[in-house]
Amino acid sequence: MRKNKIKIFSGSANHSLARAIAAHVGIALGEAEVSRFSDGEIQIGIKESVRGKNVFLIQPLCDPINEHIMELLILIDALKRASAHSVNAVVPYYGYARQDRKTRARDPITAKLLADLITAAGASRVIAMDLHAGQIQGFFNIPFDHLTAVPIIANYLKDKQIRDEGVVVSPDLGGMTRARELANRLGLPIAVIDKKRPAPNQAEVMNIIGDVSNRVAIIIDDIIDTAGTVVLGAEALKKEGALKVYVCCSHPVFSGPALERLQGAAVEEVIYTNSIPVDQNLPAEKFHVLSVAPLIGEAIMRINEDRSVSALFD
Amino acid sequence: MRKNKIKIFSGSANHSLARAIAAHVGIALGEAEVSRFSDGEIQIGIKESVRGKNVFLIQPLCDPINEHIMELLILIDALKRASAHSVNAVVPYYGYARQDRKTRARDPITAKLLADLITAAGASRVIAMDLHAGQIQGFFNIPFDHLTAVPIIANYLKDKQIRDEGVVVSPDLGGMTRARELANRLGLPIAVIDKKRPAPNQAEVMNIIGDVSNRVAIIIDDIIDTAGTVVLGAEALKKEGALKVYVCCSHPVFSGPALERLQGAAVEEVIYTNSIPVDQNLPAEKFHVLSVAPLIGEAIMRINEDRSVSALFD
Amino acid sequence: MRKNKIKIFSGSANHSLARAIAAHVGIALGEAEVSRFSDGEIQIGIKESVRGKNVFLIQPLCDPINEHIMELLILIDALKRASAHSVNAVVPYYGYARQDRKTRARDPITAKLLADLITAAGASRVIAMDLHAGQIQGFFNIPFDHLTAVPIIANYLKDKQIRDEGVVVSPDLGGMTRARELANRLGLPIAVIDKKRPAPNQAEVMNIIGDVSNRVAIIIDDIIDTAGTVVLGAEALKKEGALKVYVCCSHPVFSGPALERLQGAAVEEVIYTNSIPVDQNLPAEKFHVLSVAPLIGEAIMRINEDRSVSALFD
Amino acid sequence: MRKNKIKIFSGSANHSLARAIAAHVGIALGEAEVSRFSDGEIQIGIKESVRGKNVFLIQPLCDPINEHIMELLILIDALKRASAHSVNAVVPYYGYARQDRKTRARDPITAKLLADLITAAGASRVIAMDLHAGQIQGFFNIPFDHLTAVPIIANYLKDKQIRDEGVVVSPDLGGMTRARELANRLGLPIAVIDKKRPAPNQAEVMNIIGDVSNRVAIIIDDIIDTAGTVVLGAEALKKEGALKVYVCCSHPVFSGPALERLQGAAVEEVIYTNSIPVDQNLPAEKFHVLSVAPLIGEAIMRINEDRSVSALFD
Amino acid sequence: MRKNKIKIFSGSANHSLARAIAAHVGIALGEAEVSRFSDGEIQIGIKESVRGKNVFLIQPLCDPINEHIMELLILIDALKRASAHSVNAVVPYYGYARQDRKTRARDPITAKLLADLITAAGASRVIAMDLHAGQIQGFFNIPFDHLTAVPIIANYLKDKQIRDEGVVVSPDLGGMTRARELANRLGLPIAVIDKKRPAPNQAEVMNIIGDVSNRVAIIIDDIIDTAGTVVLGAEALKKEGALKVYVCCSHPVFSGPALERLQGAAVEEVIYTNSIPVDQNLPAEKFHVLSVAPLIGEAIMRINEDRSVSALFD
Amino acid sequence: MRKNKIKIFSGSANHSLARAIAAHVGIALGEAEVSRFSDGEIQIGIKESVRGKNVFLIQPLCDPINEHIMELLILIDALKRASAHSVNAVVPYYGYARQDRKTRARDPITAKLLADLITAAGASRVIAMDLHAGQIQGFFNIPFDHLTAVPIIANYLKDKQIRDEGVVVSPDLGGMTRARELANRLGLPIAVIDKKRPAPNQAEVMNIIGDVSNRVAIIIDDIIDTAGTVVLGAEALKKEGALKVYVCCSHPVFSGPALERLQGAAVEEVIYTNSIPVDQNLPAEKFHVLSVAPLIGEAIMRINEDRSVSALFD
Repeated sequence: MRKNKIKIFSGSANHSLARAIAAHVGIALGEAEVSRFSDGEIQIGIKESVRGKNVFLIQPLCDPINEHIMELLILIDALKRASAHSVNAVVPYYGYARQDRKTRARDPITAKLLADLITAAGASRVIAMDLHAGQIQGFFNIPFDHLTAVPIIANYLKDKQIRDEGVVVSPDLGGMTRARELANRLGLPIAVIDKKRPAPNQAEVMNIIGDVSNRVAIIIDDIIDTAGTVVLGAEALKKEGALKVYVCCSHPVFSGPALERLQGAAVEEVIYTNSIPVDQNLPAEKFHVLSVAPLIGEAIMRINEDRSVSALFD
Repeated sequence: MRKNKIKIFSGSANHSLARAIAAHVGIALGEAEVSRFSDGEIQIGIKESVRGKNVFLIQPLCDPINEHIMELLILIDALKRASAHSVNAVVPYYGYARQDRKTRARDPITAKLLADLITAAGASRVIAMDLHAGQIQGFFNIPFDHLTAVPIIANYLKDKQIRDEGVVVSPDLGGMTRARELANRLGLPIAVIDKKRPAPNQAEVMNIIGDVSNRVAIIIDDIIDTAGTVVLGAEALKKEGALKVYVCCSHPVFSGPALERLQGAAVEEVIYTNSIPVDQNLPAEKFHVLSVAPLIGEAIMRINEDRSVSALFD
Repeated sequence: MRKNKIKIFSGSANHSLARAIAAHVGIALGEAEVSRFSDGEIQIGIKESVRGKNVFLIQPLCDPINEHIMELLILIDALKRASAHSVNAVVPYYGYARQDRKTRARDPITAKLLADLITAAGASRVIAMDLHAGQIQGFFNIPFDHLTAVPIIANYLKDKQIRDEGVVVSPDLGGMTRARELANRLGLPIAVIDKKRPAPNQAEVMNIIGDVSNRVAIIIDDIIDTAGTVVLGAEALKKEGALKVYVCCSHPVFSGPALERLQGAAVEEVIYTNSIPVDQNLPAEKFHVLSVAPLIGEAIMRINEDRSVSALFD
Repeated sequence: MRKNKIKIFSGSANHSLARAIAAHVGIALGEAEVSRFSDGEIQIGIKESVRGKNVFLIQPLCDPINEHIMELLILIDALKRASAHSVNAVVPYYGYARQDRKTRARDPITAKLLADLITAAGASRVIAMDLHAGQIQGFFNIPFDHLTAVPIIANYLKDKQIRDEGVVVSPDLGGMTRARELANRLGLPIAVIDKKRPAPNQAEVMNIIGDVSNRVAIIIDDIIDTAGTVVLGAEALKKEGALKVYVCCSHPVFSGPALERLQGAAVEEVIYTNSIPVDQNLPAEKFHVLSVAPLIGEAIMRINEDRSVSALFD
Repeated sequence: MRKNKIKIFSGSANHSLARAIAAHVGIALGEAEVSRFSDGEIQIGIKESVRGKNVFLIQPLCDPINEHIMELLILIDALKRASAHSVNAVVPYYGYARQDRKTRARDPITAKLLADLITAAGASRVIAMDLHAGQIQGFFNIPFDHLTAVPIIANYLKDKQIRDEGVVVSPDLGGMTRARELANRLGLPIAVIDKKRPAPNQAEVMNIIGDVSNRVAIIIDDIIDTAGTVVLGAEALKKEGALKVYVCCSHPVFSGPALERLQGAAVEEVIYTNSIPVDQNLPAEKFHVLSVAPLIGEAIMRINEDRSVSALFD
Repeated sequence: MRKNKIKIFSGSANHSLARAIAAHVGIALGEAEVSRFSDGEIQIGIKESVRGKNVFLIQPLCDPINEHIMELLILIDALKRASAHSVNAVVPYYGYARQDRKTRARDPITAKLLADLITAAGASRVIAMDLHAGQIQGFFNIPFDHLTAVPIIANYLKDKQIRDEGVVVSPDLGGMTRARELANRLGLPIAVIDKKRPAPNQAEVMNIIGDVSNRVAIIIDDIIDTAGTVVLGAEALKKEGALKVYVCCSHPVFSGPALERLQGAAVEEVIYTNSIPVDQNLPAEKFHVLSVAPLIGEAIMRINEDRSVSALFD
């Protein structure tokens, strides 16, 4: 049996996801300690031999992101030096993904830098989910398995029986292909929110392009960060006649005022995955979390056994 | 004077653009021969010393693209081995740009491969224009200057006096930010063409999202390839009440039936740049080419003199 | 059984050789599509999982060589990204091999560039046959298995019963060690054709060094390209008293006027391998092709099973 | 004048040091913004062109160290992509330096990882001061200028007129060569504190090796972190008859209880440099900070002008 | 059985150690010839297939060190090109280790250079013993197994029944942590020899720091080279009242006058390992060699079988 | 003046050549010490700042070759770490050049390994002369200037007034293009010595191919090593009727019995360059050394001033 070739370790970013993945695979999480010295330096201790193993290291790059990145890199370094056969960085949420190109002069391309850092540290493979831009996969030359939670979200929405009266809405111009993909799975049309400034020095307004009146709107994004756009967008959709608004995303970054905004918003339900831990107690009828542990666990088993990962999405 | 540090060479892809750039810079094009042996192998001969020079090599990666890529790589190799101080690959049209991520299992990411090939050959810098996706800049770790012809196109359109009654239209969901950028320069709203299949096994239809009736539509794309989408899109726009349709792009790939289609299309004017040579005689009242030679020439001079390139677009 | 670890794919350069190799190995050729988009960009589709497999990719780099190189590189990129365990580039004919050093100022070294491109794309190993210069193997740092068809050619010639009256002739000064090697296998002396210009501004003449009168001459080269040298050389040999002339090579490039020249030449028989496909219908009594599929197939099986490849030539 | 080739930028770790360095060099600090997005991601904005400049980036890697490392790497990435001629990482305090070798199975070597990250990000050179171990310089293959504050500390101590009755004390076994170096500059003998456990399960005791009775003890370390060792060491020195105890270091990490401990300790004076900012108000008679801005500024000017840096320490 | 995956080869540095290791592992030493051409170039011939094998190459880097380094690199190159599955460089004595940092301006860091050369040649892993500085492990990014002979030395000394009256002495300031490690294993205190110059232009004297009178002194060093320090140190220890002096080291470099000095020294016994061959006939009662072949052989078997190597030292 | 950007240093291989080159350039040789520690490790000390300089390091790789290689690599490492602007390895004789391809299974390709080592150490450029095979230039990706002494040798021979009755002879089959090149410069025909074994188990004989009777034979080789071939070849030429025999080479390796053989040989004169020092006193009428210092010095000046090097050979 090849299962004794796998070890799964976790950084400190999302222990409960890591445990759920290990449980799905049917093994115990590898014993490792990730702590801090008094001066803030990361101290790690890997408590069991990894020589010759295929190690999968679970670490979404969520807030505090720079701490989590450095943990990931140091763990990769330690595992590589400890003669692991392969070190597979499982980063369900790939942070800094929105810094993937230069929008102003002298911008960094941090998403590429991060790819180079992970490669320099010694990772053999990356496994990520619903990248902000598919091109990020091309930032790597090591094998990269790109998973998606969109089918999981679609399946959950199908149970809502929204049918023909729905419309999938992209919260910005860059997210329309993602909206089209969900719309195809649900058999729905799409619309888009075009933030624009009516005149110089005036505030941006949420301009809906496409028909949403008398429809159930499903906003889909990869990331919900401060939730400003989706909350204002939901209002604008309502104003244009939308019956209800659902908000979905893969990665619940939920920074700053996000949870407060979402709790107060004119939104039926907020749907997201456990790629990032959301610690607060939230009302279950409005906040719904879908687990990606089975998806990631299945992918890990297939990678370990040289079986097709793409077949997961057929 | 630093100008004697520059040399400009051209592959065989667009000699007339290269000559115009060199003229703008105020120097003669470097003497080089790019030919074929009887068996199809590329033979090059660089006829003048490049030792210690900043060499700029002009080669858009247009059809026959694989020939042009290999020419570019071989020229870079020769210039590097000939002790050029820097070898700057000027690829106004970056080919294979639409293969920038995996859309199916086991796809290559050819746009990244191309970046790696250019780097492996020994280029010190890349200068490109209106990349299909900005993330391609992140495929490189060498300095990369990304130029844009959108201001040139916008200036040309401003002279049309379209004013308030215009609308900028993206021909597909992925091009909306480009449309928004041109729309901002012209002070116009946007719309988008959403190709969708009404039912399985039915043909795709051109579904316009956004309001275009009684408006002059300006379709903007980075590349026009077979022109199928823009021509069908123009028809759909007219059917939705558009008064006139202008079609603009940076890169006139114009492959297969493109020119025939465009000549027959319900389109006021087709506007594009000379990043790619369009050899055929075309009616000037319908086909308008804008020169990017001054833009590229200016960028080359600024790079050679360590002056800001971004300031070109302020 | 380790055979289920192998997959063999083919680019478009020599499908019939790839099929013959797969048949020798006893497996079906992997399903892949290599086609062109309308604008000339290569499109590939690998139709079956290669995760964890030792993939052997058959692609001699013959005319149109730049197309075949780009196909090879794109296929390697796709296979690497698809998590193949190893990607073995099988290039029976390594093109650009004659551009292996600088003969003039500012020459490229395209054979080295090609090695760097193959490595950058992600190949794990190269398998080639009868390189123009053995040093090309040193252009690579990845493992390289260098096969030779000279024993196959020698065996074929032995059946001709030429015996003592033969002489092996190198068509140029650079090919004498190859001639010596065949001569050793046949127990024959050698001679060489020294192209020289009798005086400045006069045409080159074919000067035979070594004794060929009343002998059966066997010209051996690695590549026959335009066939100019061998055809003029054969005439010169006849003039010096050679009884008959056989012409042999590993790689039938046969570009431009080659086939016409060979058909009209004072040559007994032209002998070559199927490393490169020769499509035209040729008179079988004068043109003899030897198959290298068993040789390459055997090498692939040995590599897959970690058995010695050099033992093939003992 | 070459001075117009220099630009100095600062991350957020030690702005006041950066300003002092720039003042010494005689230029204004480059304008750059380093802030955080709501979700903790670093946002940087470089407000002036750096094309062709020798950029010196000041960033000691002090607490919060992981934030400061990521800032450093992202700034390097941005400067490299903005076509700086050289990007010189000035890290007066090189963090993670004590993780420079494996002391337990499966330890990372984070100091080496950090070197690889800085190199991967694109730095052209590193300038550091009083590395915890000189071997860290060998972790880099890019040029590295290693400065030392020991002469500055020695000069300050000379003014104390300690003369013959002093002894330089290393607080641990690994620091004896540093103690010997300071002792040589002051003409004094050395001693060492050997932490040892008298018996299993008993607490470590501070065992002084060497003669300190009736002497003024000068403890020298590269880093004072929690100050536990130096404070207990000072007590042990007093118990062994030391008259007074001075405590010196290059890098005042001062984490956790350090400042409280030092304020309460039986120590005459604590002497350190401004490589790391120490923000709290501390009694000036006990806490003395020495500026390394002139040293670093001088080194930067010499590097920019291709003059010897080692001559600074002759 | 995995044992048929191992092959062990030896360079010319220490054939008897290599044979003893192979015997411990239970296989025959691989057949290889390492000789010299008339002009001093190294000629190697590997006489058996290594395709797919885990090759362990035994070569301590002792005098003539430059010859042994080049042998090691050439053998690695040959094994890599011969398709070994892994090439494990076993360098029990890592030479040039004392050149591990810059002590003067413009020094090389030869220990790092050596690491880069071994990596560039194609080694997959390094196995070394008692490195002069642990940081050298960080000079590599490939896996590195660091063995230690200190427990073997400690066990041998335990049989001497020295008990409480012993003291472990470091011969210089840089070696105190090594002395502490041996002292911990033997339950003894430590002392150190501080070479210092009493006044400028006077000779260095051996100043003992710590109490050695009426004690059995055990000098421990990693390397004994010319033996100058240990012989003078032994005298100084005797003068300070030491009863007896034992001298131990891992690596008996024994260059120049070392053996003569040691034979004449006031030393009870000189204890070292066979990491480096010591060819001369030496009196067994004074010179005692401990074999590390079982240690290295055991490590090789564990590496080959993916079992923990660190567990060897628990 | 750019001359103050150059520094020339020498390893220990050929100090007199280095001095002559520096004299030609018009500067003093840089002060550096290259010595050995007692245990054979190389110790170097560079006594003057090289910061920002173009350093040219003269070191032919002659016997003791491994010592000279390691000196070269260590010097490059030190110069790179000392912030030289460029480190140009001048290796007039590139050793291990005959190990440039695999001739038997499991051979190393030491000439390529050497290229990788020089590159890994940090050289920016290589300058070599009369490489054994031109393909070695392709082993490098850094700029490489390939000089030739053939014109110098040809000029010397022209003064002999040999005219029409001469013949240039290659001592083996692989050297015929070199012979043809010299022959072209002298306007002479060529011949070749074909070592062959008349029957198995019989000694090799020297078989002359081409007409040499009543001619003055000029044997040309790149390297004369043990001189066995040229001495036997000279005899065979005499036996075939040659009037006189001159022997020329670029690199006088002269190992083992070479000088003795040449002194006793039926040879008019032995002509070679000072690329390698030949220390012994030799009769000037038979042994003639040509200086390449002006050639190399001129190349260095041209490289430093960005002037064409190839123009030297027009």
